[in-house]
Amino acid sequence: MTSISRGLSMVRVNVGVADTTFARYDMAKVAIKELEDNSSKINIIRYTVPGVKDLPVASKKLIEEYDCEIVIAFGMPGPEPIDKQCAHQASLGIIGTQILTNKHIVECFVYEDEADTPAELVAMCEDRARKHARNVLRLLFEREWLTGHAGQGLRQGHPDVGPLKP
Amino acid sequence: MTSISRGLSMVRVNVGVADTTFARYDMAKVAIKELEDNSSKINIIRYTVPGVKDLPVASKKLIEEYDCEIVIAFGMPGPEPIDKQCAHQASLGIIGTQILTNKHIVECFVYEDEADTPAELVAMCEDRARKHARNVLRLLFEREWLTGHAGQGLRQGHPDVGPLKP
Amino acid sequence: MTSISRGLSMVRVNVGVADTTFARYDMAKVAIKELEDNSSKINIIRYTVPGVKDLPVASKKLIEEYDCEIVIAFGMPGPEPIDKQCAHQASLGIIGTQILTNKHIVECFVYEDEADTPAELVAMCEDRARKHARNVLRLLFEREWLTGHAGQGLRQGHPDVGPLKP
Amino acid sequence: MTSISRGLSMVRVNVGVADTTFARYDMAKVAIKELEDNSSKINIIRYTVPGVKDLPVASKKLIEEYDCEIVIAFGMPGPEPIDKQCAHQASLGIIGTQILTNKHIVECFVYEDEADTPAELVAMCEDRARKHARNVLRLLFEREWLTGHAGQGLRQGHPDVGPLKP
Amino acid sequence: MTSISRGLSMVRVNVGVADTTFARYDMAKVAIKELEDNSSKINIIRYTVPGVKDLPVASKKLIEEYDCEIVIAFGMPGPEPIDKQCAHQASLGIIGTQILTNKHIVECFVYEDEADTPAELVAMCEDRARKHARNVLRLLFEREWLTGHAGQGLRQGHPDVGPLKP
Repeated sequence: MTSISRGLSMVRVNVGVADTTFARYDMAKVAIKELEDNSSKINIIRYTVPGVKDLPVASKKLIEEYDCEIVIAFGMPGPEPIDKQCAHQASLGIIGTQILTNKHIVECFVYEDEADTPAELVAMCEDRARKHARNVLRLLFEREWLTGHAGQGLRQGHPDVGPLKP
Repeated sequence: MTSISRGLSMVRVNVGVADTTFARYDMAKVAIKELEDNSSKINIIRYTVPGVKDLPVASKKLIEEYDCEIVIAFGMPGPEPIDKQCAHQASLGIIGTQILTNKHIVECFVYEDEADTPAELVAMCEDRARKHARNVLRLLFEREWLTGHAGQGLRQGHPDVGPLKP
Repeated sequence: MTSISRGLSMVRVNVGVADTTFARYDMAKVAIKELEDNSSKINIIRYTVPGVKDLPVASKKLIEEYDCEIVIAFGMPGPEPIDKQCAHQASLGIIGTQILTNKHIVECFVYEDEADTPAELVAMCEDRARKHARNVLRLLFEREWLTGHAGQGLRQGHPDVGPLKP
Repeated sequence: MTSISRGLSMVRVNVGVADTTFARYDMAKVAIKELEDNSSKINIIRYTVPGVKDLPVASKKLIEEYDCEIVIAFGMPGPEPIDKQCAHQASLGIIGTQILTNKHIVECFVYEDEADTPAELVAMCEDRARKHARNVLRLLFEREWLTGHAGQGLRQGHPDVGPLKP
Repeated sequence: MTSISRGLSMVRVNVGVADTTFARYDMAKVAIKELEDNSSKINIIRYTVPGVKDLPVASKKLIEEYDCEIVIAFGMPGPEPIDKQCAHQASLGIIGTQILTNKHIVECFVYEDEADTPAELVAMCEDRARKHARNVLRLLFEREWLTGHAGQGLRQGHPDVGPLKP
């Protein structure tokens, strides 16, 4: 999907993008742009499901049936306690899937009550989606960047808080 | 179970329907009608168990012993804290089953205290069952519809809330 | 253990009964009588453990080492928060065991604070044990009965509440 | 470790004892004495880890790498909410390990806030460790004793409460 | 990475260090120094991920893809309820990974609200990282030290509380 020329022998890495129709913002679109703007070495495969509880198996299918090396999973749980329970279950399933497949699934959830206004929520969605898309590329191609920023208080959806200042 | 004629060589897909005697409304019946009205490519196999905690293994048996490609699981947890605990356990089991089988199990639970009156609860049951039945068909045959509605705030049991309006 | 004559070629099904010394009522005894009074096609194998957290592996052993086709597991958690936590852990283990073995384990727990008096608690234990014993037989031999009662608000330990009346 | 003579052909059963440096009382020592005083048919293998969250894998290693037929796992969670969370995680891991190995792991946890004074807590530790050590021997060699006491309200760390008196 | 001379035939043990960019202090650095100052028998392999929920699969990869015999995993969850939920999920994943691999993963988490001032939090991070690094070496090479300190109330991040004094 990218137009950057590359050597014929280069094999692209499949990156899975899982998201939901329940969410109220299309974070996957933001992330896909960020991924494509920053790498010519990937193919993106998108899998949309109804809600967050469908994300673990969608991610597993992306890894095992669509040969993805990594997945980024987007969800936007509602504000009710039952919504948080669902997100908790989804998160546990996403962690279980990673353990069974030895592949990273970067979870990018935004809670509908994390911000006070829709505009703030959209800004948070965009920031978190973009930054986690970059994390996907770092986990694939630039692990030393992550170690170089270990313990630096990086945040997604918010400005970085930085390291402790004692 | 459908009367729509089809080519001889066509192989139908098995769709599992798991539900309970604990529930106070027959959501499976609503969903089966919706499934059959909208597809001639499926066989429905129904498996009824006592309560929601029996749904994970019923779904696993539908997938592995009855060769279902997908399952829809219905439950109606009661209003007490212990009922919600049971539903939580069932949901975790349903997610675990999906991860182990690489098949979707669309969970369609209605909590007995989600509505104020029995009439409202019935309407919610019917709406959620019908919409999730459609989701089953989309996951099987029309994945592009889901991606086309990613981040659109779709709901089951309630009217769609739509995307964020910043 | 039953005296009903049967054909020589008939092979009985092994039914596991798991229970605890922690419980304050012998529900297994009630269930075994109910099972034997209503079927000549089963062998009962009983496995008693100290507490509810020992039930998942006892059930797994009944299935895999004692060749049980189904298990019924009895427990009576105490009234403290830690007791409910233990029951939650046990339930998750019981669901996990079912998923790994593709066999039903019918969980029959009575919480010590579910009733106001010991007499009420005993009545609840007996009713729940008896009804779940019947569910075991239905899951084995009479699945159509369960589907015939789907969404009918059946209860164990209490009178049935029946379907919603909108 | 016992001095009771036994026939040459007798093969002892390996019993694993897992415990922690976090605990504030050496329950394993009490249990080992109880085990050795009451059986000449076992070998005890002890594995000490830092905290309760290390107990599941320690138990798994005792079973799979040290060939233990059963394990008893001791822990003493602190009084803070985070300590109870850790104990909950450990318990789930211990149940998961049992399910994967088909071996019993008898969990013997004493919470630091279960008693009002250190002396009471020590007495509780000793009683629970001793009684659960006996349960280990019963699960190995005397399962009929457990069934004979099913539903009898046995307790460890406290006096037995006995069966319900309706 | 250590300069201590050793025999040619000696094979070093791989020790994995997993940590996050979310944390606000570089605990891994402290632990690596402690590990190297105290053993010439190990190789350290470091794997940094965005947050604590990425630690289970990072640990699994360290064990299975980088041949680590043991892992130490660092995280610093934030002060919000959602942060504690994430840490709970991560801990469950870390325990699950240990059970599946039969390798220890020593979890070293410091909660951002465990101390009142940044200076106290840093001191806690350093103490916990250093002591758990020592625990890693003891689990690898000096198990008898741990058994010698069973039930002694050892703490990491705080001074030891010692055994109960009845």
